[in-house]
Amino acid sequence: MSGIFGAYSAVKKTVLEEVYLGLYALQHRGQESAGISWIQDGSVASKRGLGLLHNAIDQKRLADGEAYNAIGHVRYVPLESSRLQNVLPISANYARGPIAIAHDGLITNLAELTRQLEQRGAIFQSSTNSEAILHMMAQKSHMQPIDALVDALRRIEGSYALAVLLENSLVAARDPYGFKPLVLGEREGTYYVASESCALDIVGATLLRDVEPGEIVVVNGKGVKSLRVRPEEKCRRLMHCSFEYVYTARPDSIIDGRSVYEARKEMGRRLARKSPCPGADLVAGMPDSGTIAAIGYAQASKTPFEMAVVRNRYVGRTFIQPTQKVRELGVKIKLNPIEALFKGKKAAIVDDSIVRGTTAERIVSMIRSCGAEEVHLRIASPPVLHPCRYGIDTRKENTLAAVRMTLDELCRKVGADSLDYLSEEDLTAAVGLPEEKLCTACFSGKYLEDEEK
Amino acid sequence: MSGIFGAYSAVKKTVLEEVYLGLYALQHRGQESAGISWIQDGSVASKRGLGLLHNAIDQKRLADGEAYNAIGHVRYVPLESSRLQNVLPISANYARGPIAIAHDGLITNLAELTRQLEQRGAIFQSSTNSEAILHMMAQKSHMQPIDALVDALRRIEGSYALAVLLENSLVAARDPYGFKPLVLGEREGTYYVASESCALDIVGATLLRDVEPGEIVVVNGKGVKSLRVRPEEKCRRLMHCSFEYVYTARPDSIIDGRSVYEARKEMGRRLARKSPCPGADLVAGMPDSGTIAAIGYAQASKTPFEMAVVRNRYVGRTFIQPTQKVRELGVKIKLNPIEALFKGKKAAIVDDSIVRGTTAERIVSMIRSCGAEEVHLRIASPPVLHPCRYGIDTRKENTLAAVRMTLDELCRKVGADSLDYLSEEDLTAAVGLPEEKLCTACFSGKYLEDEEK
Amino acid sequence: MSGIFGAYSAVKKTVLEEVYLGLYALQHRGQESAGISWIQDGSVASKRGLGLLHNAIDQKRLADGEAYNAIGHVRYVPLESSRLQNVLPISANYARGPIAIAHDGLITNLAELTRQLEQRGAIFQSSTNSEAILHMMAQKSHMQPIDALVDALRRIEGSYALAVLLENSLVAARDPYGFKPLVLGEREGTYYVASESCALDIVGATLLRDVEPGEIVVVNGKGVKSLRVRPEEKCRRLMHCSFEYVYTARPDSIIDGRSVYEARKEMGRRLARKSPCPGADLVAGMPDSGTIAAIGYAQASKTPFEMAVVRNRYVGRTFIQPTQKVRELGVKIKLNPIEALFKGKKAAIVDDSIVRGTTAERIVSMIRSCGAEEVHLRIASPPVLHPCRYGIDTRKENTLAAVRMTLDELCRKVGADSLDYLSEEDLTAAVGLPEEKLCTACFSGKYLEDEEK
Amino acid sequence: MSGIFGAYSAVKKTVLEEVYLGLYALQHRGQESAGISWIQDGSVASKRGLGLLHNAIDQKRLADGEAYNAIGHVRYVPLESSRLQNVLPISANYARGPIAIAHDGLITNLAELTRQLEQRGAIFQSSTNSEAILHMMAQKSHMQPIDALVDALRRIEGSYALAVLLENSLVAARDPYGFKPLVLGEREGTYYVASESCALDIVGATLLRDVEPGEIVVVNGKGVKSLRVRPEEKCRRLMHCSFEYVYTARPDSIIDGRSVYEARKEMGRRLARKSPCPGADLVAGMPDSGTIAAIGYAQASKTPFEMAVVRNRYVGRTFIQPTQKVRELGVKIKLNPIEALFKGKKAAIVDDSIVRGTTAERIVSMIRSCGAEEVHLRIASPPVLHPCRYGIDTRKENTLAAVRMTLDELCRKVGADSLDYLSEEDLTAAVGLPEEKLCTACFSGKYLEDEEK
Repeated sequence: MSGIFGAYSAVKKTVLEEVYLGLYALQHRGQESAGISWIQDGSVASKRGLGLLHNAIDQKRLADGEAYNAIGHVRYVPLESSRLQNVLPISANYARGPIAIAHDGLITNLAELTRQLEQRGAIFQSSTNSEAILHMMAQKSHMQPIDALVDALRRIEGSYALAVLLENSLVAARDPYGFKPLVLGEREGTYYVASESCALDIVGATLLRDVEPGEIVVVNGKGVKSLRVRPEEKCRRLMHCSFEYVYTARPDSIIDGRSVYEARKEMGRRLARKSPCPGADLVAGMPDSGTIAAIGYAQASKTPFEMAVVRNRYVGRTFIQPTQKVRELGVKIKLNPIEALFKGKKAAIVDDSIVRGTTAERIVSMIRSCGAEEVHLRIASPPVLHPCRYGIDTRKENTLAAVRMTLDELCRKVGADSLDYLSEEDLTAAVGLPEEKLCTACFSGKYLEDEEK
Repeated sequence: MSGIFGAYSAVKKTVLEEVYLGLYALQHRGQESAGISWIQDGSVASKRGLGLLHNAIDQKRLADGEAYNAIGHVRYVPLESSRLQNVLPISANYARGPIAIAHDGLITNLAELTRQLEQRGAIFQSSTNSEAILHMMAQKSHMQPIDALVDALRRIEGSYALAVLLENSLVAARDPYGFKPLVLGEREGTYYVASESCALDIVGATLLRDVEPGEIVVVNGKGVKSLRVRPEEKCRRLMHCSFEYVYTARPDSIIDGRSVYEARKEMGRRLARKSPCPGADLVAGMPDSGTIAAIGYAQASKTPFEMAVVRNRYVGRTFIQPTQKVRELGVKIKLNPIEALFKGKKAAIVDDSIVRGTTAERIVSMIRSCGAEEVHLRIASPPVLHPCRYGIDTRKENTLAAVRMTLDELCRKVGADSLDYLSEEDLTAAVGLPEEKLCTACFSGKYLEDEEK
Repeated sequence: MSGIFGAYSAVKKTVLEEVYLGLYALQHRGQESAGISWIQDGSVASKRGLGLLHNAIDQKRLADGEAYNAIGHVRYVPLESSRLQNVLPISANYARGPIAIAHDGLITNLAELTRQLEQRGAIFQSSTNSEAILHMMAQKSHMQPIDALVDALRRIEGSYALAVLLENSLVAARDPYGFKPLVLGEREGTYYVASESCALDIVGATLLRDVEPGEIVVVNGKGVKSLRVRPEEKCRRLMHCSFEYVYTARPDSIIDGRSVYEARKEMGRRLARKSPCPGADLVAGMPDSGTIAAIGYAQASKTPFEMAVVRNRYVGRTFIQPTQKVRELGVKIKLNPIEALFKGKKAAIVDDSIVRGTTAERIVSMIRSCGAEEVHLRIASPPVLHPCRYGIDTRKENTLAAVRMTLDELCRKVGADSLDYLSEEDLTAAVGLPEEKLCTACFSGKYLEDEEK
Repeated sequence: MSGIFGAYSAVKKTVLEEVYLGLYALQHRGQESAGISWIQDGSVASKRGLGLLHNAIDQKRLADGEAYNAIGHVRYVPLESSRLQNVLPISANYARGPIAIAHDGLITNLAELTRQLEQRGAIFQSSTNSEAILHMMAQKSHMQPIDALVDALRRIEGSYALAVLLENSLVAARDPYGFKPLVLGEREGTYYVASESCALDIVGATLLRDVEPGEIVVVNGKGVKSLRVRPEEKCRRLMHCSFEYVYTARPDSIIDGRSVYEARKEMGRRLARKSPCPGADLVAGMPDSGTIAAIGYAQASKTPFEMAVVRNRYVGRTFIQPTQKVRELGVKIKLNPIEALFKGKKAAIVDDSIVRGTTAERIVSMIRSCGAEEVHLRIASPPVLHPCRYGIDTRKENTLAAVRMTLDELCRKVGADSLDYLSEEDLTAAVGLPEEKLCTACFSGKYLEDEEK
């Protein structure tokens, strides 16, 4: 999971600080590393680092730079590969000049591509997906960079949203299934690409449109041009990631034309109708991810919504790791239910999803300690039963609570009086996109590959 | 404004990590510096630093320490005195042994006390209030430490909640008016004092009771003993800070017996009745401080509550300082209204208070840019018209929006269709404490001193 | 052991950077912490930190400041008290205004003074000698600061060289025995005090003279004034530290009128005469402390001098702590003898002193591994048999090699073919001061106190 | 200019800390960055950073690692390319597995090689020489790594000393002219390669021999094997860098069989004979680089040698950058002449070389300020008249003092009473290698390329 952002100023304004702000708005998509690359004197300059954006990149130093063409990246890196070499954007010089790539997604045929590239002499200095794209382009150095990029993308399987920095242009590309979101914005002659529209808002840009599945958008001094990885008519089969609407994206983003907030609230409303909690005194969301669905649930069930579980605002800034001595305090460090609201009450708790069930178990137990009479857990998405193959970090199948237990077993494990999920139909309807345009593989197990066979 | 926390384990368990966690729960009371002091081999050891708790103190190193008696402090330090010498707890050795003090509040006769102490030979190495208390005790070195502390507190005017670390005891004290909150908790033989009950929750302690106004609680190997700065019967005139309920405290804290969440929601409810917004499509709170009052407002006015203004979760971790180039983007970095919720709608926006009015103005303007038809601003406390003399950092009188403008002028300035405040009566009623027990000086101008004359 | 430096510009030039440079020249006198204090807007401002000067104080930030009156300090702090509170200068405000003190030396009646001060209400926030001086002055707040300082110094026993910063003056003082060096310099209307004259050189100042034993020099807008701790005629009994000439001071310093370089070379010359090494092929010094004596030894014995043991120039910058795996490599990390020079040769190795004998043993062994035929060790000072009571950190008596072993035993332990020391008479003669003016207590055991009884 | 070090333990002992120590001994060859790479679980792991070794690499963390095959690098990086990507060793995976390279030298046909490699699809992620070698090997992925390395080296023109880390072996290689030094050592079953023998000393290893010009040494589980870049008989034309003997190497190193100390002292001796200074009272070296030649000069001229210019031992650790205010103090920060030695004397000052002449000018002026009667400057190498093409960072031709001025002009500029250089013949004789085996291009302008045409 990553956030990408790019800016190209046709009016030659410096865009470095705006790229920084854009990444800042996308920080929720990746907190483990951040990087910004830009064109300076005909080659790529970069600032990259581990940690949150402000740890990774010194904003003040950046603001000193000047560049009208730049891209940036925030990334969730699994711990084991959290090395500086793997921080994106990746950049290089090749026969056709400087290049840098920021990538959100997962190339599913990476091993095969790597083997082929190495056979032809490629050396891999990182373990990133993006380096393979660089090599594919470099090994077609007789082509123009854009053509080489199109050629490379045609060889890639899996998911991608890309921002590619070339000497005189900025390229955005989205895989033919549209797994990963990518939008195009503009403000006073400067063009932007971003994983989510909330990053356009922060720089005051207008959302022009989504980059279309299978589309390659080239921005340069001549304006905006559109190419295709695959002809549009062959991109009818879309697979927009439904988990973006459930959890990943910020609620103030609009993805493929749908407001994430509206989708999430509708999930809550439909959950209330499918699985009501009659007589509940209050509805509370698990902060922050369950809050909006909880509002929808409360509205549809005409039950008072309360911010009844308080999240320490400083969590995440500090990554407190309790030592063994206080391990049992666990989730209390992050979340605290308000006794005055729960005491003697029947509560409906809404969360966006259950992965391993550990957090749910602790929260239910904490709420019971507050003297709640009944605690009913409602999940605003279907059970997660399958791993994601396209870039969302869900756990291995055998760690998924819904795989390992029946609904009743899981309900008992988390200690709730009742437990229910949203149906796939309701999820699809809540997002408001046709069923065939939404990837629900993690819920349904219907993977693109299986289907296409 | 500060947060204080102390722990004394009668069963000789080490408490350093719990003090760290307690401060973590109180981080909202002060982000500029943090410190922890404990007794080790008969003298005081300390870790202190600038910034958020995790920047100021290395949690891992701390966890290596061993101490069953410790206090900690988080502090809002005005920038000009943000020097390491001023970070609390302050500690010293004097004729009666080691001592450290953590202090929340403001000594109003500090200048006079300092003069007297210096005349008798005191040297001041910091510009903290707490150093004066140390000197008062030291200049009565013929007395037992506890007696010297009582004697010192009797000479102090103003507000204080104190945690004092002595070689074999932990002392908590609260000024006779009870301006500043202070609670007492216990868990398996370890006693805790804390500015707010949410810090007891994080260490799994039970809230025993508030330290009473004018009370001095001494915890040592023999148990808990209570002394008085001033006889209880003379502490009838209480002045609990009403701003704690409005803004300062965490909603999951219970202060002087009242749930902060309940008080805040009731402020919203009463605001809805006093100043309704008929025909509003939605009620939204200014995050995070206006959210709970907005829920109350929405419930009382039977209008849908929405989390319609999104706060960047990473704000504060990063202190992004936009340079001139992007200055106009301003408050967008922190807050983003959701267009889908506001477009063509009539919105009631609830905030906890208005100080200078700048943020309100920007937010209203942002919401209008989303296409809102009408924006009505409701403030869940009375106009702030007077500076606080007891430790809350409100601006100088002439910067206060409500001082400089009439209600109409302010409404026009912020660009709202209407603007209204909560009344003092409603504030008092919402908190649920008798009027005479609540300090509302910043709203009413009724200061303790004026009254006592 | 410490280095102190102060500057007062009568022509109101800013002196902060010069104090920084002065400390830089005195870095050899203390590497564990550094601090600078100056008068700014009528009170003391300070920068202090642990480590070498450039780690402790950000030179660039300092250069931004403005002050024409400032003092600084570099310090050897024993590890156990290496806390930020103990970094000098210590500063405070007291009844007579701001004050800061930098101190080199050891107050021998500190415990008694502390007891008295605490009885009168003093609180000790550090474990430094200097804080007691502040308290003595503060408890005489009816006196002018200078008078209070004189009064305080009269109560102190032990050694001191002081730089005291007052609001409108800079004071330098030296104990009546002149244990610790202190010089006075001037350049274009700015006056300087420094532990050693090499620090005057770095700022281009002229050495005016030594501060005299028992003298208090006050520099202010009216010029330079001299007071006395004790009348000059009562300061006939001087005790200049002979170890300054042997080891502590930089060779380019002039202390009490004697060139340290010349003294050290003369020690080598006299050592050659007292204890020659006939037939030696080369003379080498143990770098860096034995080098100059070795040159003298070589010149007097007409034997070639060689830089035959190479010291890694980066030692000290890095404090490499080999783990167990490479512990046996030991002293090789720091020193490396040159095989080409030692192979088949008879070598005389000159060092300034032997404390525990461990380093000598390793070096001799390394030189033998180079194939040296004979290794003769010559020490350019008498055996260290007694601990220093006045501020030099020599080890406890029972760790001193010369205490624990006879000359023969020690010679065998270090593995040398012969071993000899300089005599006390020669040491005194080499320094060139009358015997009665030189403290040789660490060699002779003749302490001031014993004598005065 | 760089230092390289590698270790392969045939007895499977971990070597990481020894590589760290080896680099520590080579720190004088490069202070701008440092890196260590090792094989771990079949791939390359690395620690790299900017600055001195101890800043660049956390020694403690390193010591936790385990690897019996590792290489390291310290580097002088010109400021403009001081980016983390350029810190060596460079590492990658290619079709034949993991690889890392540490390189000292300069590839003179790099531009041409890069062009060819890019044409065949290479992407360059750094601006290092070494990356080209990786690509050359990768583009011959049908060959065994060793064979591909040999093939690559045959295409390289210029200078190199290499340590190459492969999955199961360590390879050392030296260019056919032997420009750059490289030695082979052994200790208890562990083999080492190092730029200089002083790095073998620090780990207690025995110097086996120099890697021969044109030789490729392969160390693996089967022992040590020798290959050739070019047949030995074609390596008769050697070009050992004479500047290594003059300045670069540590005096305790043995390079191509010659002790650097002995060579430097002999330069001094020959300089004394060629250009005596009759009647001089003392000979002093410019620290540290002129010291050993000064000893030789003093011995040959029977004039006393003195350490008469003191170098601040902490220089370099601190990189003090005086601001404008104290700029005039200049070189005093680093060096201080001892007045007592120079006053009224005739002094011969020996330095290793003159590049721009600025430092010489300041030193002569400082010595005159000490009251010296006469100052005669002697340079222990010939005038530097030509830039180095093989990796020594000498300035551009038009900044070289000896190019811009006649001897007389330069003498006047630096303010000396007389100035003279060593002759090329004497330099060659002092090193003790046949003239045709020594590169003296920077003195003579006789470049290899010109000769070979």
